[in-house]
Amino acid sequence: MSFREHLQHVVENVDGAVACALMGVDGIEVDSHHLPVEDGLDVKTLLVEYSSLLGAARQAAETHQAGGVSELTVQSERLLVVARLVSPEYFMVVALQPHGNFGKARYMMRVTAPKLLAEL
Amino acid sequence: MSFREHLQHVVENVDGAVACALMGVDGIEVDSHHLPVEDGLDVKTLLVEYSSLLGAARQAAETHQAGGVSELTVQSERLLVVARLVSPEYFMVVALQPHGNFGKARYMMRVTAPKLLAEL
Repeated sequence: MSFREHLQHVVENVDGAVACALMGVDGIEVDSHHLPVEDGLDVKTLLVEYSSLLGAARQAAETHQAGGVSELTVQSERLLVVARLVSPEYFMVVALQPHGNFGKARYMMRVTAPKLLAEL
Repeated sequence: MSFREHLQHVVENVDGAVACALMGVDGIEVDSHHLPVEDGLDVKTLLVEYSSLLGAARQAAETHQAGGVSELTVQSERLLVVARLVSPEYFMVVALQPHGNFGKARYMMRVTAPKLLAEL
């Protein structure tokens, strides 16, 4: 399966998911699958901006001996975003509608991350 | 009940919780309750640094029409941190051991936030 097929599989199997992406920790997207969303909501750009949060969280956690960051979640009024590290250089991220299935998203990321890693 | 008593009540009622704090979005702590943690892990300073993530997430979410940020979670090897907005100027945060009860932490924050807000 290609990256895109894995990402699409996640979106199709998580209620409320609108996007799944594989990104570098520098915020550059490797591949992604997006569903159409409401006007004005710019998921693609938001995920790039959130990727800098992951970088800042990693730095803070390492500095203060909290160990490596494995997951970051941001819940906002119109979007729930979960990012999970796939390797030290790459992470995958799922964006869901606010009442999407967060637990299923985390599960799908857990099982998909090793598959993406195997192809990186 | 004082702020401190509310925060202590959260720590005492969430398995694995090691700290609960009420903070300004500028990272300045209003009050907190901490349990002793392993050597080297600086929870207090880490929470201050994480508060800047909340600020950055709010700005990104608002810019890209994702609405107000209500919650941010950072999972690292030795600490799980959940921050929840109490008002536009203040948030509460719970730090847990990695296998602490995340669901109970979120529940306790949901019921405690209005009590803190009433006293702010």
